[in-house]
Amino acid sequence: MRVIDFDEEQLHELQLYEFAEINKYIDSDSVTWLNIDGLHDPSLLEQIGKAFDLDRIIVSDVLNTDQRPKIQEYDECLYVSIKMMRYNEAEREVVTENLSLVMMEDLLISFQEMKGDVFDPVRERLRKGKKKIRTSGTDYLLFALLDIVIDHYLYILAQLGERIEFLEDQIMTDTSRELLEEIGDLKREINFMRRNIVPAREMIHGISKIESDYFVDVENEVHWQELKGNISLALESADGYRDMLSDMMNIYHTSVSSKLNDVMKFLTIFSVVFIPLTFIAGIYGTNFDNIPELHFEHGYYVMWSVMIVVALGMIYYFKRRGWF
Amino acid sequence: MRVIDFDEEQLHELQLYEFAEINKYIDSDSVTWLNIDGLHDPSLLEQIGKAFDLDRIIVSDVLNTDQRPKIQEYDECLYVSIKMMRYNEAEREVVTENLSLVMMEDLLISFQEMKGDVFDPVRERLRKGKKKIRTSGTDYLLFALLDIVIDHYLYILAQLGERIEFLEDQIMTDTSRELLEEIGDLKREINFMRRNIVPAREMIHGISKIESDYFVDVENEVHWQELKGNISLALESADGYRDMLSDMMNIYHTSVSSKLNDVMKFLTIFSVVFIPLTFIAGIYGTNFDNIPELHFEHGYYVMWSVMIVVALGMIYYFKRRGWF
Amino acid sequence: MRVIDFDEEQLHELQLYEFAEINKYIDSDSVTWLNIDGLHDPSLLEQIGKAFDLDRIIVSDVLNTDQRPKIQEYDECLYVSIKMMRYNEAEREVVTENLSLVMMEDLLISFQEMKGDVFDPVRERLRKGKKKIRTSGTDYLLFALLDIVIDHYLYILAQLGERIEFLEDQIMTDTSRELLEEIGDLKREINFMRRNIVPAREMIHGISKIESDYFVDVENEVHWQELKGNISLALESADGYRDMLSDMMNIYHTSVSSKLNDVMKFLTIFSVVFIPLTFIAGIYGTNFDNIPELHFEHGYYVMWSVMIVVALGMIYYFKRRGWF
Amino acid sequence: MRVIDFDEEQLHELQLYEFAEINKYIDSDSVTWLNIDGLHDPSLLEQIGKAFDLDRIIVSDVLNTDQRPKIQEYDECLYVSIKMMRYNEAEREVVTENLSLVMMEDLLISFQEMKGDVFDPVRERLRKGKKKIRTSGTDYLLFALLDIVIDHYLYILAQLGERIEFLEDQIMTDTSRELLEEIGDLKREINFMRRNIVPAREMIHGISKIESDYFVDVENEVHWQELKGNISLALESADGYRDMLSDMMNIYHTSVSSKLNDVMKFLTIFSVVFIPLTFIAGIYGTNFDNIPELHFEHGYYVMWSVMIVVALGMIYYFKRRGWF
Amino acid sequence: MRVIDFDEEQLHELQLYEFAEINKYIDSDSVTWLNIDGLHDPSLLEQIGKAFDLDRIIVSDVLNTDQRPKIQEYDECLYVSIKMMRYNEAEREVVTENLSLVMMEDLLISFQEMKGDVFDPVRERLRKGKKKIRTSGTDYLLFALLDIVIDHYLYILAQLGERIEFLEDQIMTDTSRELLEEIGDLKREINFMRRNIVPAREMIHGISKIESDYFVDVENEVHWQELKGNISLALESADGYRDMLSDMMNIYHTSVSSKLNDVMKFLTIFSVVFIPLTFIAGIYGTNFDNIPELHFEHGYYVMWSVMIVVALGMIYYFKRRGWF
Repeated sequence: MRVIDFDEEQLHELQLYEFAEINKYIDSDSVTWLNIDGLHDPSLLEQIGKAFDLDRIIVSDVLNTDQRPKIQEYDECLYVSIKMMRYNEAEREVVTENLSLVMMEDLLISFQEMKGDVFDPVRERLRKGKKKIRTSGTDYLLFALLDIVIDHYLYILAQLGERIEFLEDQIMTDTSRELLEEIGDLKREINFMRRNIVPAREMIHGISKIESDYFVDVENEVHWQELKGNISLALESADGYRDMLSDMMNIYHTSVSSKLNDVMKFLTIFSVVFIPLTFIAGIYGTNFDNIPELHFEHGYYVMWSVMIVVALGMIYYFKRRGWF
Repeated sequence: MRVIDFDEEQLHELQLYEFAEINKYIDSDSVTWLNIDGLHDPSLLEQIGKAFDLDRIIVSDVLNTDQRPKIQEYDECLYVSIKMMRYNEAEREVVTENLSLVMMEDLLISFQEMKGDVFDPVRERLRKGKKKIRTSGTDYLLFALLDIVIDHYLYILAQLGERIEFLEDQIMTDTSRELLEEIGDLKREINFMRRNIVPAREMIHGISKIESDYFVDVENEVHWQELKGNISLALESADGYRDMLSDMMNIYHTSVSSKLNDVMKFLTIFSVVFIPLTFIAGIYGTNFDNIPELHFEHGYYVMWSVMIVVALGMIYYFKRRGWF
Repeated sequence: MRVIDFDEEQLHELQLYEFAEINKYIDSDSVTWLNIDGLHDPSLLEQIGKAFDLDRIIVSDVLNTDQRPKIQEYDECLYVSIKMMRYNEAEREVVTENLSLVMMEDLLISFQEMKGDVFDPVRERLRKGKKKIRTSGTDYLLFALLDIVIDHYLYILAQLGERIEFLEDQIMTDTSRELLEEIGDLKREINFMRRNIVPAREMIHGISKIESDYFVDVENEVHWQELKGNISLALESADGYRDMLSDMMNIYHTSVSSKLNDVMKFLTIFSVVFIPLTFIAGIYGTNFDNIPELHFEHGYYVMWSVMIVVALGMIYYFKRRGWF
Repeated sequence: MRVIDFDEEQLHELQLYEFAEINKYIDSDSVTWLNIDGLHDPSLLEQIGKAFDLDRIIVSDVLNTDQRPKIQEYDECLYVSIKMMRYNEAEREVVTENLSLVMMEDLLISFQEMKGDVFDPVRERLRKGKKKIRTSGTDYLLFALLDIVIDHYLYILAQLGERIEFLEDQIMTDTSRELLEEIGDLKREINFMRRNIVPAREMIHGISKIESDYFVDVENEVHWQELKGNISLALESADGYRDMLSDMMNIYHTSVSSKLNDVMKFLTIFSVVFIPLTFIAGIYGTNFDNIPELHFEHGYYVMWSVMIVVALGMIYYFKRRGWF
Repeated sequence: MRVIDFDEEQLHELQLYEFAEINKYIDSDSVTWLNIDGLHDPSLLEQIGKAFDLDRIIVSDVLNTDQRPKIQEYDECLYVSIKMMRYNEAEREVVTENLSLVMMEDLLISFQEMKGDVFDPVRERLRKGKKKIRTSGTDYLLFALLDIVIDHYLYILAQLGERIEFLEDQIMTDTSRELLEEIGDLKREINFMRRNIVPAREMIHGISKIESDYFVDVENEVHWQELKGNISLALESADGYRDMLSDMMNIYHTSVSSKLNDVMKFLTIFSVVFIPLTFIAGIYGTNFDNIPELHFEHGYYVMWSVMIVVALGMIYYFKRRGWF
């Protein structure tokens, strides 16, 4: 439970262990951002719900981490939920958690599933006293948090995109099974992101349609436009990568099967060249009483010569037809 | 025929065998939920239709279990139909039945095709006297029933999802035909669910557009929003699983064909190695009078040596080219 | 040319041969349904057009049997066209013809291309004096005719569906070419139906948007809703069957190619087992002066033993690798 | 430059070589249709533009034959462009040219790229003095020209459809490469038409949304409805043919590969039958001192018998397994 | 930093090195176009932002070259961004850079990433004193710049289209791997363009919906219509080329695999013809005491004759069955 309380002149940042301590920040005129890590303690949530007189649905929504990103307007507050994603570079996988935001007049509460978030740049801006964020109220803070979440979508997509582009270079030469599995992994992650981005985009569009007192600030409208642009960009780049991966999968399969076909063709041609030679040897292995060639002085060498001529002739013919 | 009659203070729950018995519950101010299992007795339906003065179309709609989920507003009531699905764990299949709901001022009638339903949690909440459901009227009861039906969609999807994820691990190693049939089964069930979820979503969206006296309760609007979110979530997760199954099918086919190709390549290479050896043996099986090699003291061993060198040379060459 | 003239009390049904005879039915207050089989006689159409003062476009639309289902409002009448489909059980094919309906105040004219239609249930209801249809005017009659036409779509889809489900059971075991052709036939018929259902649905939706005096009857609105539900159901089930057929086609091709692959693999393995054996025989068929094995007393039997060991070894190895 | 000037009573048709000659027709009250073949003479266009005070954009649009079908409203006129297509039966290809129509109060100018058009039926109707077209003004003339253009789309689609249906019968038996190329050609032409029909449909829908003085004539509205129906029909039938061609391509590939597979299977089975026979011959070609069978009196015949039995046994086995 | 300042009578064009120098052009009544090449100098941007009192968001948008094409209305100006594309003929690749346009009453600022642009034709028109562009204000200048950008899209698509059509001719005969890579390259470039054209089209449509004082000029509306038509044409032709490339890829794969199949079939038939011949030779290579044929005077020649008859018979049979 971390509190950042700020107005234009001052900023207080502290770690709370008792919920009661928060009251003095709430009551002040300054904007208060209450950030709660971990949802393991339902009684705390109950307490918060009661303290701020939140609808019970909000409390249960906060606890339900499987829900779709959504926006819900209540009399006393605005509830927003979205998936927060981070890229775990070590394990090369996307980590996702549900983020719930409750915005009131002078208070914004953010609920995360786990410790660790993507909000440090926002905290930094607050601490450094950037004028815009320090003077704009909870709606701008909400925007700033959503903005950083969506920026992280773009960042993760860029990370995945780098791996995809790296694979794209390899795919022309390498046909190992690992490559295919890597492509499959990336495809699954891109699809997973897409499934989260689509309803998030819906939600972002929903925000700008809400005509509530929280959003009347004309000056901020342009920010929501930018958010919309960014989430659309995220979706489009996810779609772009998905198409690239599908293409790569096709190229991979084509490469593998064309390589296999080349091998099989070579082996077949190799076999075929020996077939008439073995036949000729078979002919002179027969035990007929009367095979004149067998008694020629150089019969054996003539046979060899004929064989070599036949073999070279076939190879020449196949080469000329462009078969290998 | 089961009746639950309740208001804030009291709840009566009983099994009816005679339709006439119901009248005293109807006439009271309390909310009455009449649940009818099985549609085998059309005369009972006729009786109900007459008693509550229902449009004849409603009666025929209740009997027509093949219809699409829909919502229809009448002067005296609201008619809602949806597919109720349960997951039969033993047979691992989705069981579906048509559910018709007729909502009037103080009465909600639910018609099911078969005994057994998914409503026990609602009954439990009623019995335990949860304040919200006991005080909110038939519209909230309708919501609660639809909510539990759609929760079951999500539950079934989660069950199928578990089987799908279990298969996904297997698919990399196992290429048995049973796996393919299992994937086909799951695909059919997911498609079947999708076909029911799509019109159900349409219907749920239809409810919130109805401006009737039954739905004016502003407090409940947020519940319908949640229902919409859930049914959209169901559809999205069905779509997600469908894509996963398609991918798995492709992976399966790729695995099978790549395994087959490996076998065929191995066999072909094996054959090809023997071809020149058999040819050499053929050469020395010819009966020419004059084949000097045959009369060398160690000719036979030299032939073996040559053969071994040729075979190893070919194996080395194929290995170096990465052919096996 | 068949006339059914009815009001609540009485019904006249007769076959007309002279167009003039109809006048007395038209002039009465009762509802008149004039059904015309066959469009081979343009002069009759001209006569009808003149008699009822129809727009010339209507007459040419009636004659143009290739047109899309559509609805067109005129000052004096409403023109509706739709494809009427029947399932020819003997030839197992869908027969289609264009149906044009012209609705006026007390008169409904239906134009069919061929003798034979799907309207008998409507006629039966009229004859039996069902109150609803006998008292409701031409708009309900129009509804009843369209309803029966669309019911037939559903019926045909159910027929095709049965054949599809029957094939689905066979497809796992049978891979004959006839099955593929049957699937192709069904696919073509489903596609054909889809192409007719889509614009029909558009047309049905168009009807309920028309705000004319013919459709003000609030009581009937619910029927049009049902019609919409049915045509959507038809489209969805056509889509469902189309997907099933595509899946079946894939399963068929997979089955065929997997069966072929099994055969080829078996044959290849069979050949491969003989290759070293033939090589060994080749070795001892060479004519070297000095091959010690040839002079062992049991050399021949030892060769056989070696061959059997090699063959069994290979079979064991292939089996253990799961190659057959 | 061809002029047709008409009103209800009279019609003048003439070929103009000097642009100035046209003035007397323009000034009259009668409707004038000025048709210009070929756009090779920009100065003529400039002259026309100046004479009728057309926006310079119109002139440049007329010259730009690569543009999309579109409709543009100006103060003094309405500009419509569409692709005119004709089917060259000799070369079996679709010929396309851009058609620009400029409609003013009493004047309609049509610009074509090449000599030769599809308007003869309209001219014929004008000459024969059909009342509708002679009395309805330039808007009906515009409709008549667009109608004939779109009728030609349908006609071309019907021509292509005939070739497609003819191919469909062949495809079951014939697997020549020419067939595939023919399918490819047809696919390209259908796609080409689709690309022109889609924006044309957009344009036709655009016309009926224009609320200008040129289109107030209620009587004509039904004609624009028909035009919409026809262009939709064209698009749907193009889509239908496209699907048929895709299906045919799949059937072709399936046929080719199944035919090839049959050949390969036959050849493989043929080879496999000989393998054990050759092995047996190899056995008795060995030079062991002590092979008792060689000295049996009928050993040679016994070997033949064994071989025949083995071969027949294998053939019987393969047949019973349904392998050929 | 290049300035073009013009009104109907005069035009000043100059290269600026000091930002302050611009003031005198700004203050005049004439239209000023300030073009800035390269975004490497953020301080210059800051300076410009301050001088014209631009929103800080505009400045950061100008610097963010990864953004989607968009349009944003501010109180004091209109911000438009789009991707400018050029075709590098030498490297045969599409070069793209972000173009930001800020339009104010008498001033249009264009920011490019790199030196070199596509605006020379606009500059030429300005210099030549074309009346329209010299007298129409910044909105027409904005249109002219966007128009030339989109014209370049069409030009690049035409360039790519030429390469595609050139490949299409080759694909029937050539099956080299380079061709496939070329197709892949083109596909990637077309997809890349598509991803830029789609949001650009959105943006262009957005412009015509803006009801600001900058766009009231009715006369110019028709130009924006044309821009819309052009960007739609670009999208449609990109889609058309994409379909062509997909078809070509399929044709390529079909050609390759059909060529391979022909080779394999030929080789297999070749082998199969020798199999019975080798078997016959094997028979007469056996060492049975009693093989009468061996002792016929012409036995050896008879064997040859039989072999030739068998081989020709097989070849005849295979030919008649159409196998090669």
